[in-house]
Amino acid sequence: MFEKRDGEERMDADPAAMPGDGHIVFIGRVASPWTRREDCPKNMRAARETGKPAAVFIDTPFRPGLRGLEAASHVIVLTWLHRSPRDLIVQRPRHATEAKGVFALRSPLRPNPVGLHVVRLVSLDIEKGEVGLEAIDALDGTPVIDLKPYFASVDAVPDATVARSGG
Amino acid sequence: MFEKRDGEERMDADPAAMPGDGHIVFIGRVASPWTRREDCPKNMRAARETGKPAAVFIDTPFRPGLRGLEAASHVIVLTWLHRSPRDLIVQRPRHATEAKGVFALRSPLRPNPVGLHVVRLVSLDIEKGEVGLEAIDALDGTPVIDLKPYFASVDAVPDATVARSGG
Repeated sequence: MFEKRDGEERMDADPAAMPGDGHIVFIGRVASPWTRREDCPKNMRAARETGKPAAVFIDTPFRPGLRGLEAASHVIVLTWLHRSPRDLIVQRPRHATEAKGVFALRSPLRPNPVGLHVVRLVSLDIEKGEVGLEAIDALDGTPVIDLKPYFASVDAVPDATVARSGG
Repeated sequence: MFEKRDGEERMDADPAAMPGDGHIVFIGRVASPWTRREDCPKNMRAARETGKPAAVFIDTPFRPGLRGLEAASHVIVLTWLHRSPRDLIVQRPRHATEAKGVFALRSPLRPNPVGLHVVRLVSLDIEKGEVGLEAIDALDGTPVIDLKPYFASVDAVPDATVARSGG
């Protein structure tokens, strides 16, 4: 499933086997319609286009942290993509002609496998720990490590560009 | 410095003392003009307004991961705010009249202290591991755990709102 493609490079030392500089704790889980990797939308735009809602369920001790989140129209969900290899430092995405560094890609295979999802908040039930979302591009059961309110003043750069490379 | 204010709540168990569900490795460090917390801009807008550039220095084994990042006009920098308490689940920011859950705030005090910074990329020297940035709202020396290219199509929500509460 994660076979190496032409031009890809692995690190000499695997971050998964390195001593940690810090530890993360799971605060909850994604609930989404996606149970198989091949069905999971590849990005948030594709996720929204499915029209399928999703949710994050926050574990009991962390639920007071949701207080006031209803004021935000959009939230940033940080997930932990714990099933992905962490040592593939140069990658060639399927259909790409060129290999690129992992930090130039949004691949789930990263030295620190943090996924970032900007999503519309549709409901909030703090007692149940349920954060209703318009959609999400993450597998059902994916661990969640943080939620942040999205602030357009600092997070929205509508004119940001990514130049096309050879691919 | 981190005294508890009225209305604030601590978790019964401190995430800093919980067994980790996963570990992070530092991939580099922020270089910024900010060496004291009281001088550090409180958000990216304030950081940009200082007109002071910054950088991220990526450690040698991770530098191949930068290949191709120069195509992006903006990058998302994820930092690890390792000096902050992790158990303050409800917080009252200075000058706020109301306490809020940590997930409704961009406070550095979080169960998983991941900082998120959307920044303009101004230069890239892969050999030196130097990622030049327009500015950053992070202290000099802050550990970096990930860089991602910013994609306006999925990351920019210019009409996102946060309703004002009592404060």
